[in-house]
Amino acid sequence: MTYTAHITVMPLKELLDPQGKAVMGGLGNLGLSQIKDVRIGKHITLQVEADSPEAAKAVATEAAQKVLANAVMEYFEVVIA
Amino acid sequence: MTYTAHITVMPLKELLDPQGKAVMGGLGNLGLSQIKDVRIGKHITLQVEADSPEAAKAVATEAAQKVLANAVMEYFEVVIA
Repeated sequence: MTYTAHITVMPLKELLDPQGKAVMGGLGNLGLSQIKDVRIGKHITLQVEADSPEAAKAVATEAAQKVLANAVMEYFEVVIA
Repeated sequence: MTYTAHITVMPLKELLDPQGKAVMGGLGNLGLSQIKDVRIGKHITLQVEADSPEAAKAVATEAAQKVLANAVMEYFEVVIA
């Protein structure tokens, strides 16, 4: 069976996010001053062939650990839809 | 009150995702052949000062429409946490 894994990869909370800061400046210039902080990461969807949601989550987690997330600077979350 | 808006920006489904194809090749080389498709987008979190979740969602949607998503090639979803 094919499962969809949603992986969210974000910069670690204690790290400065220069990309986010730049976007926040742009949003402020457009009058969206209600936005106090912006953090930008990756959203990755995988179509995984597996016998169960748990098996699909294990594959997605392995993919995130090995390729999709840089553990030094990022954390990730896996959700199976 | 401060709300967290989670914005997911993904390439339109009918568009080829070359980045996703490249990552899929890499995952296959690592023995993760159960992964049949990979699509890569952005996950953006905004801290929004607003009076209600609906008001926060309106601000986040405006930010996505104006800056965060390219409507020609991407679609987005906004969730207020």
